[in-house]
Amino acid sequence: MDQPIGIAVVGAGYWGPNLVRNAQATPGLKLRYLCDLDTERARRVLGDYSTVRVSGSLDDVLADPAVDAVAIATPAATHLPVALAALRAGKHVLVEKPLAASYEDGLELVREAESRGLTLMLDHTFVYTPTVQHLRHLVRSGEIGSVQYLDSVRINLGLVQPDVDVLWDLAPHDLSIFDAILPDDVRVTRVSAHGSDPIGAGRACVGHLTLELSDGVLAHVHVNWLSPTKIRTMIVGGSRRTVVWDDLNMVQRLSVHDRGADRVEGDEDRRQAIISYRRGDTVAPALPEKEALRGVMQEFAASIAEKRAPLTDGWSGLRVLAILEAASASLAGGGEFVTVRDVPGRGATGLAQEEAVA
Amino acid sequence: MDQPIGIAVVGAGYWGPNLVRNAQATPGLKLRYLCDLDTERARRVLGDYSTVRVSGSLDDVLADPAVDAVAIATPAATHLPVALAALRAGKHVLVEKPLAASYEDGLELVREAESRGLTLMLDHTFVYTPTVQHLRHLVRSGEIGSVQYLDSVRINLGLVQPDVDVLWDLAPHDLSIFDAILPDDVRVTRVSAHGSDPIGAGRACVGHLTLELSDGVLAHVHVNWLSPTKIRTMIVGGSRRTVVWDDLNMVQRLSVHDRGADRVEGDEDRRQAIISYRRGDTVAPALPEKEALRGVMQEFAASIAEKRAPLTDGWSGLRVLAILEAASASLAGGGEFVTVRDVPGRGATGLAQEEAVA
Amino acid sequence: MDQPIGIAVVGAGYWGPNLVRNAQATPGLKLRYLCDLDTERARRVLGDYSTVRVSGSLDDVLADPAVDAVAIATPAATHLPVALAALRAGKHVLVEKPLAASYEDGLELVREAESRGLTLMLDHTFVYTPTVQHLRHLVRSGEIGSVQYLDSVRINLGLVQPDVDVLWDLAPHDLSIFDAILPDDVRVTRVSAHGSDPIGAGRACVGHLTLELSDGVLAHVHVNWLSPTKIRTMIVGGSRRTVVWDDLNMVQRLSVHDRGADRVEGDEDRRQAIISYRRGDTVAPALPEKEALRGVMQEFAASIAEKRAPLTDGWSGLRVLAILEAASASLAGGGEFVTVRDVPGRGATGLAQEEAVA
Amino acid sequence: MDQPIGIAVVGAGYWGPNLVRNAQATPGLKLRYLCDLDTERARRVLGDYSTVRVSGSLDDVLADPAVDAVAIATPAATHLPVALAALRAGKHVLVEKPLAASYEDGLELVREAESRGLTLMLDHTFVYTPTVQHLRHLVRSGEIGSVQYLDSVRINLGLVQPDVDVLWDLAPHDLSIFDAILPDDVRVTRVSAHGSDPIGAGRACVGHLTLELSDGVLAHVHVNWLSPTKIRTMIVGGSRRTVVWDDLNMVQRLSVHDRGADRVEGDEDRRQAIISYRRGDTVAPALPEKEALRGVMQEFAASIAEKRAPLTDGWSGLRVLAILEAASASLAGGGEFVTVRDVPGRGATGLAQEEAVA
Repeated sequence: MDQPIGIAVVGAGYWGPNLVRNAQATPGLKLRYLCDLDTERARRVLGDYSTVRVSGSLDDVLADPAVDAVAIATPAATHLPVALAALRAGKHVLVEKPLAASYEDGLELVREAESRGLTLMLDHTFVYTPTVQHLRHLVRSGEIGSVQYLDSVRINLGLVQPDVDVLWDLAPHDLSIFDAILPDDVRVTRVSAHGSDPIGAGRACVGHLTLELSDGVLAHVHVNWLSPTKIRTMIVGGSRRTVVWDDLNMVQRLSVHDRGADRVEGDEDRRQAIISYRRGDTVAPALPEKEALRGVMQEFAASIAEKRAPLTDGWSGLRVLAILEAASASLAGGGEFVTVRDVPGRGATGLAQEEAVA
Repeated sequence: MDQPIGIAVVGAGYWGPNLVRNAQATPGLKLRYLCDLDTERARRVLGDYSTVRVSGSLDDVLADPAVDAVAIATPAATHLPVALAALRAGKHVLVEKPLAASYEDGLELVREAESRGLTLMLDHTFVYTPTVQHLRHLVRSGEIGSVQYLDSVRINLGLVQPDVDVLWDLAPHDLSIFDAILPDDVRVTRVSAHGSDPIGAGRACVGHLTLELSDGVLAHVHVNWLSPTKIRTMIVGGSRRTVVWDDLNMVQRLSVHDRGADRVEGDEDRRQAIISYRRGDTVAPALPEKEALRGVMQEFAASIAEKRAPLTDGWSGLRVLAILEAASASLAGGGEFVTVRDVPGRGATGLAQEEAVA
Repeated sequence: MDQPIGIAVVGAGYWGPNLVRNAQATPGLKLRYLCDLDTERARRVLGDYSTVRVSGSLDDVLADPAVDAVAIATPAATHLPVALAALRAGKHVLVEKPLAASYEDGLELVREAESRGLTLMLDHTFVYTPTVQHLRHLVRSGEIGSVQYLDSVRINLGLVQPDVDVLWDLAPHDLSIFDAILPDDVRVTRVSAHGSDPIGAGRACVGHLTLELSDGVLAHVHVNWLSPTKIRTMIVGGSRRTVVWDDLNMVQRLSVHDRGADRVEGDEDRRQAIISYRRGDTVAPALPEKEALRGVMQEFAASIAEKRAPLTDGWSGLRVLAILEAASASLAGGGEFVTVRDVPGRGATGLAQEEAVA
Repeated sequence: MDQPIGIAVVGAGYWGPNLVRNAQATPGLKLRYLCDLDTERARRVLGDYSTVRVSGSLDDVLADPAVDAVAIATPAATHLPVALAALRAGKHVLVEKPLAASYEDGLELVREAESRGLTLMLDHTFVYTPTVQHLRHLVRSGEIGSVQYLDSVRINLGLVQPDVDVLWDLAPHDLSIFDAILPDDVRVTRVSAHGSDPIGAGRACVGHLTLELSDGVLAHVHVNWLSPTKIRTMIVGGSRRTVVWDDLNMVQRLSVHDRGADRVEGDEDRRQAIISYRRGDTVAPALPEKEALRGVMQEFAASIAEKRAPLTDGWSGLRVLAILEAASASLAGGGEFVTVRDVPGRGATGLAQEEAVA
């Protein structure tokens, strides 16, 4: 990596400052620009002491050959034009979730990137936390046995978004985590969604997703903008161990329980007798402290340098989009199960990716 | 109340000993019998120091004029014959939830009791906790404003029941609590249920209920026998306050949050601007310590003595049964919304009941 | 154990009912009397359904040859005359902590019991919890390495006792736990005590004990009647593991941390470099649910039947008394270290006891 | 504040980067230099994108007239020469705790600053958290009544410092908080300290301070480098309310309990009867989120601009030093109470400061 990868951050709003900070701190990256139509806002983000250039023109930034890559933190509706322009200018792209405002838009981006041999990576930040990396290991290595159910709760008093409902705002986190930790050959096949808008905001502020996986397992996601109490809990029930992730428990985020109920093969007539219960120890693995976005930037730099797909590549973004679109259809249809589009690509490069990140 | 009410407990299994203990400790009640086909088991429950009589014959017990009332803690499938026999013998009846194995059976019991002028009461234990009593006050007095959503999670590593699924086993708690705290004119109109049986137990071990209330509010219930972690949380979101009940938080079960999002009437074009957020104090009300089942027994004795309907009367049991039957139909139908039977009677005596308990 | 051991409970106040309940439930014991000067109170404790006899006369109870043993739950000031009378009547004695109001009184009881070959056991209830039993195993087996420090916090809003200060009321719990878990050859040599009486109650309501152990280790105990928040935490720091016991954490009472700082032997000149830090996993061992007082009663019955010293014998009670007396002297002297009386007997029968309980 | 205050940060070690970041973000301040003998380290702290100058020469920095103020984050032993040089060069000084390595050194700094009319401020960071600001209000306004006891626990697995023991490393936080929240006329008069060094680090790694206040109240501080579990709890018991501060409870840092025990004036003979217990509601006040160090920088800039003493002025640093020296003397003397030096100045400007910060 003799020459650092020149990068521009596009968008100086809520998430942009985090991209700026982490791009600056990542070896192998050289931050060239912060680009925003509102150049005053961009200057405020950089502060009074920065040598990074501000630009109000995406075209100018993309025209600069010192820019090899672009990190996009603009509203979802603009992802298609911005990312497309970047790809067409030959730049690698890191894009905030969701990949695009629709599956079709997202597919166009993925194809554009593939046809040009450019990296297209999703900023599925949680996937790069030490917690999810360990969870991914526990699930994919078989340590917890086969997955029996998943349950995720992500609720707090959150900003009612002007353009998307709570499912599109929050559930991408859960869906991208499921995508990263489950085996490559397991995918979400059907979705049932319920939602409500008790404050008259004009879109669902409380949402429930029931996901049917290709191996028959059910997963559930509860997202909520109106809860005064912040809860971020995910349970991954396995046939050998069950993992509980409480993201607000600073001292013990992950708990691996040797507890559960099993069906023991035996006399079919006496159903009750053949359930056995384990009540063993609980282990809280030691996890390193690391800012997730640092890992995102490192993976982005490494996937460009090594000319390989990143862990959260465009296809992972498409899989999340496919589920969100099915969820919206279910919500509109009163909660009935809606089949999720079959997204090509999952698993094709999974193992290589796993090693790259570990 | 010159003469104490003679009572017999029927069923010496899991719940019976609790009924025995609380019946003995309740002024106004005189425990005459513990009745179980397995008289040895009944004797073990009473221990070596008790003057209470054991009987293996329900007929004998019901024939004893010293028995005015019967508390039934037998399997749900037997509630109809046992309770019917008791009512026909002129005894008041307290019955463990659910009221009966089906709505039709339950209705038969309610009508029998009404026609004879006897008390038929459900042992909806949670309703008699100081926590639910206070929650009922907060909701029904309007202190939290109008209810916007309800969310209940009741999960732990529980016994896989031989006869019922997790919805019928655990959700009656949540449904009876909703029934007790919501205003009289609000009822559950439709139910969508999802469930899974990941261990091959032969019935749903993980269940999700989405309930539509008559005022358009959505409520959600998550019940789970397979979780290694015990969670018992209910959130009641209101337009003025939101209440979070964490039943495992010994030092602060109820938290009343002056936090939330509101839609402010105003310029319809600028949707985002008209959501306002409150981030005020949180109050944890002081609650007395009191065993809930003691309150159940006191209400049973009082409703008999005062010849009035108890707070959790037969109709409340029927309303819970109607929801459970709709949930089972939804589960069988793949999660579609199923209309809940319209149960007569709700609200007819609600206010009087409230005062009686407070 | 052909013939059950006849037992009488003396004292129907705060703790007596628990002794009554557990004596009745323990195989091998036969509860004969509940004895209290206030026979009405004793009758209320037994309730309306008990075959146990009430007596207002200790003499009568002690004269009954069907009474083999006595469990005493009277105020500490009366322990000497009541227990002495029981021992002189040839009865085995279980006595609530503290053993007596003074070391001299306690020693008289121990000698009386020894000279008569009778069991004298302290109701150091916490020692019989599964938690302390496991903690005892972790410490004494060497699994946590050598003990480096102990810290116990036992604070809540508690009743200001009329006769004793907070040290005598609460610290016996901590001191008896230390006594049970530490190796036999380690004892408390010196005590420094601070206390305050901010509400003018006439005795210390907040207390701090600093204990010096014979191996140089320091232990600290904080007891407090005035805290609105209940905290019951004990930390046992070891050279290999550190155990944190949070008694109010229902789902994870014990946490065994493979975390700590160690001094590595090496270059003495560079002090900082030779401290190494472990940040390994945390294990929460699965512990059975068991009422501690049941274990107390079982040990009492077993020690009588097997004619052996109980785990918490009179000497353990004396060791606690010796520390309390030194603490009172330190408190009176302004917090200076006071040497603890050397109590004979510790360790003589320790290993045998450990096996008996396990 | 037409012209921003030019500031240099001295010391690019553990704390320096935080000073750099917050100095840059504070209006009214203009960061001119990061100064460290190790200029490479200083450059790494600033990163590749900064316009701030690096200097390896304190003399050069102090000679620059564009530098009006200096923030010092060097080891405590160097505070005297560095701060003295800065003051003599006419610069205002913000210094990391403790003020100096000894009371005498600290006093020299305070006098130097006073004689020159320069601001000398302590970076007692916690004092500027919204939590402590609110706690200060609750105590000083009388809302909690008169303070009856204070108890602070600050334990975790922390770095064994090469130059100071755990009391000097951690207790300054607690002592400066006490100093900020207590009324001006209350001060610490005597200290008893116990400590232990179970890992052979060469200095106390576990420490307990018992502080006697001038109004007779006792305060206790437990600091510990060896605890695998992080606990940061402070209890301020008042005659009307008791405040519990759990700094690791993200959702409820402060709890104001209307709970406690009071002595009621009355019949002196019946001591027990005259204690009354309150068990009222608990209120968790809404507190803003704000980085404490931002508040430090703002107060530093404001006190310079307004030519007034900062909230945590040199005298507050001296008061903390006086207690630490007394604690060290007590530790050396086996835990006996040692009288704390009487520090002039406390309270002279307190009320003005309070308003300035609020």
